[in-house]
Amino acid sequence: MPQNIAEPLEELIDQFARFPGVGRKGATRMAYEVMGMSNEQAMALSKAIEQAKTGLHRCRLCQDYTPGEVCKICASAKRDRSVICVVESPRDIKAIERTHEYHGLYHVLHGLISPMDGIGAEQLCVKELLARLNDTVKEVIMATSPTVEGEATAMYLAKLIKPMGIKTTRLAYGLPVGSSLEFADETTLYRAMQGRGEL
Amino acid sequence: MPQNIAEPLEELIDQFARFPGVGRKGATRMAYEVMGMSNEQAMALSKAIEQAKTGLHRCRLCQDYTPGEVCKICASAKRDRSVICVVESPRDIKAIERTHEYHGLYHVLHGLISPMDGIGAEQLCVKELLARLNDTVKEVIMATSPTVEGEATAMYLAKLIKPMGIKTTRLAYGLPVGSSLEFADETTLYRAMQGRGEL
Repeated sequence: MPQNIAEPLEELIDQFARFPGVGRKGATRMAYEVMGMSNEQAMALSKAIEQAKTGLHRCRLCQDYTPGEVCKICASAKRDRSVICVVESPRDIKAIERTHEYHGLYHVLHGLISPMDGIGAEQLCVKELLARLNDTVKEVIMATSPTVEGEATAMYLAKLIKPMGIKTTRLAYGLPVGSSLEFADETTLYRAMQGRGEL
Repeated sequence: MPQNIAEPLEELIDQFARFPGVGRKGATRMAYEVMGMSNEQAMALSKAIEQAKTGLHRCRLCQDYTPGEVCKICASAKRDRSVICVVESPRDIKAIERTHEYHGLYHVLHGLISPMDGIGAEQLCVKELLARLNDTVKEVIMATSPTVEGEATAMYLAKLIKPMGIKTTRLAYGLPVGSSLEFADETTLYRAMQGRGEL
């Protein structure tokens, strides 16, 4: 710790620097931002962290964060219980919900299989997913990221789920809407070609 | 609030989104990051905010944040009391201290004069600076940013301080070290030309 920085400030910078994507410089900026807040504002932030952490836990069914035992989507009578969309993290649910096109249920794995990082299927919420696959479920959509880990996880789960007689699908690969073909990488272009549909 | 996001999480996202430079997306990412922390980690973060805010206040002399009545720099017997370096914010002290080249005292204005934002001299710690200008002080260095507001503030203070018979200086303008002349803007280049020194 440099002599000229007060200890509680150094501690706060350390804490902010733990967020991925927030470097030492960004953390310092945020810490000074906190110092510039009114006492009420700073306490509201501190309290919000505490309350999110103590007031929320994983939904018994889909593993998304919820204040109750079961989350709003799992509890909703309006959702189609025959489809489960498998995602890596609760953030992905938010993204898919924004499309307003999906009306089924979700399941959060809380990670992806990654042998490089020593993360196996047993560290993910796979057991919890398999426990949900009763006769009502007709399709499981793999909505993991189009990365090596996302692919491996989708393949692993498909191998477990298909033998149960449940349709297992995967999000389409292709060109991002609004993008330029010129700048698409070869792999994406190849996948877009493979997945071409009739007009 | 979308139906599918738990309220304490939404509140936490709102809180993080208040940091300048942190958009809604970044705030969401940070909030989920908190959810993924252990309880101990999250409580340490919450506590650090509270403690920085309640455990620190402004130094009676220079207005930097400190746990005591007077900060370490103002209290240090090793610092040159004949020079005061005036900065916009406590962050700037940190930056100047990293050069290890300045051994005088500091004074934090906690802002810059900005008529556009309705910020006048009376909202800054100018009174506190003037109160420090006794016979010991031989030079006041204006180390405000090279912006319109930084310039205006430096000029304003110089007008008050020079008549007191105290030397008033300003940080040099010029090319950033390691930068390419080719990419320097005209104003910087003009200033670098004006401020050229003998070799």
